[in-house]
This record gives sequence, structure tokens and C-alpha cells, in this order.
Amino acid sequence: MRQAVMYAPGDVRVEQRDKPTLQHPTDAIIKVSAACVCGSDLWPYRGIQKVDEPTPMGHEYVGIVEEVGTEVTTIRPGQFVVGSFMASDNTCEICLDGYQSRCIHVEPVGAGGAQAEYLRVPLADGTLVATPSLPDEDLIPSLLAASDVLGTGWFGAVAAEVGPGKTVVVVGDGAVGLLAVLAAKQLGAERIIAMSRHADRQKLALEYGATDIVTERGDEGVAKIKEMTGGYGAHSVIEAVGTQESMMQAIRCTRPGGHVGYVGVAHEVELPGLELFFAEVHLLGGPAPVRRFLPELIDLILRREIDPGKVFDLELSLDDAAQGYTAMDERRAVKALLRP
Amino acid sequence: MRQAVMYAPGDVRVEQRDKPTLQHPTDAIIKVSAACVCGSDLWPYRGIQKVDEPTPMGHEYVGIVEEVGTEVTTIRPGQFVVGSFMASDNTCEICLDGYQSRCIHVEPVGAGGAQAEYLRVPLADGTLVATPSLPDEDLIPSLLAASDVLGTGWFGAVAAEVGPGKTVVVVGDGAVGLLAVLAAKQLGAERIIAMSRHADRQKLALEYGATDIVTERGDEGVAKIKEMTGGYGAHSVIEAVGTQESMMQAIRCTRPGGHVGYVGVAHEVELPGLELFFAEVHLLGGPAPVRRFLPELIDLILRREIDPGKVFDLELSLDDAAQGYTAMDERRAVKALLRP
Repeated sequence: MRQAVMYAPGDVRVEQRDKPTLQHPTDAIIKVSAACVCGSDLWPYRGIQKVDEPTPMGHEYVGIVEEVGTEVTTIRPGQFVVGSFMASDNTCEICLDGYQSRCIHVEPVGAGGAQAEYLRVPLADGTLVATPSLPDEDLIPSLLAASDVLGTGWFGAVAAEVGPGKTVVVVGDGAVGLLAVLAAKQLGAERIIAMSRHADRQKLALEYGATDIVTERGDEGVAKIKEMTGGYGAHSVIEAVGTQESMMQAIRCTRPGGHVGYVGVAHEVELPGLELFFAEVHLLGGPAPVRRFLPELIDLILRREIDPGKVFDLELSLDDAAQGYTAMDERRAVKALLRP
Repeated sequence: MRQAVMYAPGDVRVEQRDKPTLQHPTDAIIKVSAACVCGSDLWPYRGIQKVDEPTPMGHEYVGIVEEVGTEVTTIRPGQFVVGSFMASDNTCEICLDGYQSRCIHVEPVGAGGAQAEYLRVPLADGTLVATPSLPDEDLIPSLLAASDVLGTGWFGAVAAEVGPGKTVVVVGDGAVGLLAVLAAKQLGAERIIAMSRHADRQKLALEYGATDIVTERGDEGVAKIKEMTGGYGAHSVIEAVGTQESMMQAIRCTRPGGHVGYVGVAHEVELPGLELFFAEVHLLGGPAPVRRFLPELIDLILRREIDPGKVFDLELSLDDAAQGYTAMDERRAVKALLRP
């Protein structure tokens, strides 16, 4: 089968590889309908994360179940499924608390690489959610978004305790930040301030429900948020970048007692203890437990109440995966969808 | 009046100073019945925090109201009062959310120094809580504890979302840690594991409701907690020390999705972003909003349901304040009470 493989920073190739096979009785093999390039795939692409050997890429996927192991009971061949980027048993205490991305048996689904024709999904019963019937073709981008980028933005909003009456700030206007705006709107936020300095992304943020755009960042951005919130700061702030600057901006935009949900993978971030102590904000972040939210998100998509698929502004054949990486790296695209 | 003043690390003197006077119409002057030495007073005493000039010490107090400003409406001369170590208006949005220690008009009560015969308390209506009548003499240590060390341990437990069915770990066996054990018990925790290696403190922890004692610390301590919790980690962990080691120990003892409440003043602490991200625990800490809890804590003390005053294992005349600092610095005392 064809599969996207990263050889080195800046070097993504689509090549022939063996089709994956069942390795455990709890596995499923799916035929991938669509996959995509994640902001986190750009870390190794840019050389910030090491690439030690040719590495199959991709961890976001939707597809049709081809084969299941003998112990799989809820997922059947022929079903259309959406899955989280982290495989979980969905039965351990951590999963039952809603933190499936940190399941005691967690495995990264992306180990096999989802930017491919076929994908092995471990712990299929606990990882995949099937749609009631085959979805309309035009809903596939939105369902694909649910497997990571929407689930991640949604978790950011939930972690930031977004809700009615709240003023919400979103730091970061990538696909996750934009979908955090969508999530904040769905969760009933009163005011949603998107911090963005790109016209095209501001436009989508406003479509998704942002009430205000702030173009300043760093100390100026914090001052602006304070000014807009009576000097207090926002109730809920979603951090969707993962740098030192964006984390501190998020923390400083939050009022004492408020909540920061951080979903940008925090590379090279060090939080100063004393400032954090006196900020007195709630912090929660990490890899999104997408599985917790999938049933609700799939339902919202199938009822056409949300349209997260709009974040895909570039659609390519899997064969052209390298173009997707380049376009995202150069910020010519927010997010690239790949069709095997 | 007599007052304890720190001249330099290791140099605390009791000397004559002017009695404080009303400076704002929202002030009260109280005659201090009892004050004490805080673990945080040891930071400058040990030279970790700078002492630039002779500094009046102490921020924990109970006393009798002597005089109030013209705008004070709820507090009257003659009342016995307990107050937070941070003055708050108790009317701003931050206070109404329960974070009075970060009130938009916050002032440290300790600026004037509570280890003295008299103390000026700013924002008296929002800071002080009066008891219904003069309390029995033997309850004064417990009421004094409420003004900081009990309120702080209690906040740690609330921030860690302690509740029925939860396994709770307390890192730190100083007065705050011990009272966090008491708080966890009151809040209905199922299991309370005190991490302590001092026999006298273990004894008090058990009296206050600890169900288990763990003497290991660092990686060994974390491994022990994991072993005791089915590999998952604790639901709620209270950090009551404030060092890099204790913060990391607390975070690593917590299960994904669990809660860390940190109340040790985090000096020279840096939290590694990537580890925090993958730990996926809730974090909340800071100076305790004691004012939020005072009515409930005072009530529990007056009804003799809790006895937080037991943490005072050394009682001295104010004149001997220096001995209190020395005893706590040398760990001969958990906490020293001073009588003016």
C-alpha cells in the first residue's frame, strides 16, 4: 500500500509499504477514507523533534473497517469509524474518568501511520466510534476533524471550563485554536476573543463564533485583554500553540480563579513557579481525550450543527502528501486533508 | 507598643514601635490576642528572601477590635475577630468568585506586622470575621490557626478537589500539611496518605485523620503511591512545601485527570512544560483565599469539631519571638504561638 514516511526534516515521501495486519485480538484494520497533516507533524518536519529513522506519519483518520480481531465486540467490518489519535481500552479508571488519552493501556495510533491506505488501530472497541450508517461524502472532512483537531480544541474549551456567561480567550489561530472558538460557542460562552493576526483566520474565527479579534500579542495582548475585561482578565483561556510565549500569554490573560486549558504541545516550556503561584489560575492540559467527546461531536456533525471541516483549506491526494507539509510549514494552508 | 522586627536573616528583635493608627476609613485597629510564626517567615529568616530594611513581621492574628474607620459597617469595637493574612474588599468579581487573596484591591495585612500588640487591618469589612461572642480562651490557638495555616491547608484540599471516595496524598508535614490532612478528613476523603518522615508529625497526622504514612520521598515516594493506588496514582494531591522536588513529587503522585492543590510558596520552582502536558493533571494553587473559608472554619472550631490549634507545639511571650523563629528553623517546633 502507499504510505507517507518522513525521512528527515523537510523530507516526506510517499512509498510502497506492507499493508498492516492484525497483531492483537483487540485490533482492527481500517481502510482509510481520509487523513490529514497535524500541526504537531510540523515539529519533526521543522527539525525541532528528532527523526531517527524513516517514520510513518499521521494520526488523524476516518475510514471503513476492513477486519477485526477475535476479541473486538462493538466494531464490525463495513462500518464507517472515527477514532482518537490515542488508543484506549475505555474501561480502566482513567478512561472512566474521561482521560482516555492517558489510559493505563494507551498506545499512539499513529505508530503505524495514518497517512496511508490502511491503518491498524489497537484496542478497537475502546478507540473507535462507528457512525450509525455510512455518512454523506461532504461530511467526511468534519468527521476527520473530530479525530484530533476538533476533539483537541473541544478539550481545550472544556479544560478551560467554558460555559454560559463566561468571557473566553483563544490564544492561537491554527486549526486547533479555530475549533476551540467553535467549541466555546457550542458550550455557550458569552464572549469569545480570538487572538489572531491573520486576516483569513480571523474570518473563520468570526464565522465560528468569535465576538472579538485581538491582534496584539505578548504583554500588549495581555494588556488589551485586561482592558476588555474590566481589569480582571478572562474567565477561560485556551492555549493552542505550545510555546513559552503563548503559555505565559494565556496564563496572564486569565483572572485569578479562572481556568487555562492548554492543548498546544508544550515544547521547551518552563513555567515559573512563583508567577504561577501568584497568578492563582486553574491549569489543565495535555493530549486531548478525544474518545470522551467523539459520540457528541459525531452527533453534532451528522446533524450538521457544526462544520469543523472548514479548517481544511487544502485537499490533496495522499501521493502529494509532501505538498501538504510544505504548505502548512509555509503557512499557506491552515490544514491539509489527504485522500488515499 | 512592642513589635517583632526582622533586621537581617537570623536577626529578629522585639522593640518599641508606634501603635498603628487608622489610615483609611475602611481600616480597623485590633488589639492582638495571639499571633504566630509562619513557615513563610522562615524564607527571609534563612536568607532565601531578601531583607532590605528592618521589617515588622507576622501576618496571622486574632484579636479584639479597638477602633474602626468611618466606613466600616459590619465590624465593631469590642468584637473578637479572625482575619485573613490578605486584606480584601470581598465585593469585587474576584472575591465573589472566592479568590479573595487576589482581590482587585488586595493588600497584605502583614505589611504592618501582626507579631505585635496592635495591628491595623485594611478593608476591615471584607477581611475580618467576628465570632458571635468572645470565645473560650482555650479556643484561641485554633481560631488563630484559621487566619492562615488552617485556611491554607483547607484551600489546598479544596483546590485538590478532595471529596468522598477520593484517595488523597499530602506532600509536606509542616503545619499546613498537617492541617491539609485535617481538611481532607473533614471533606470526606476515603483514604489520606501523609508523606512524612518525622515521628511526632506522623502522630499528629494520624490524629487528624491520615489513614497511611509514607516515609519515602522523591521517585521512591512516587513509586510507593502508585503501588498503593493500583498503578493509577492518587485522585487528589496537596503540595505543602514549595520546592522543586516537592512540586514534582506532587505532580507525579497524581493520576491523569486528578487534581494537585499547591499551597507551598513556590520559590525557585520551574515546571517542565512537556512533563506537565503529559501528566495531564489539574493544577491550582496560590495564596489561600482564607476569607472564603473563615465563616465555616470558625463555626467548626466553636463547635469543637476540629482542633487545628494542636499544631502549635510552642507557646511564647511576644518578647521571646526570636526563640520561636529559632525553634522552627531548627525544626524543634512545628509552629510557635506568640502572646503579646
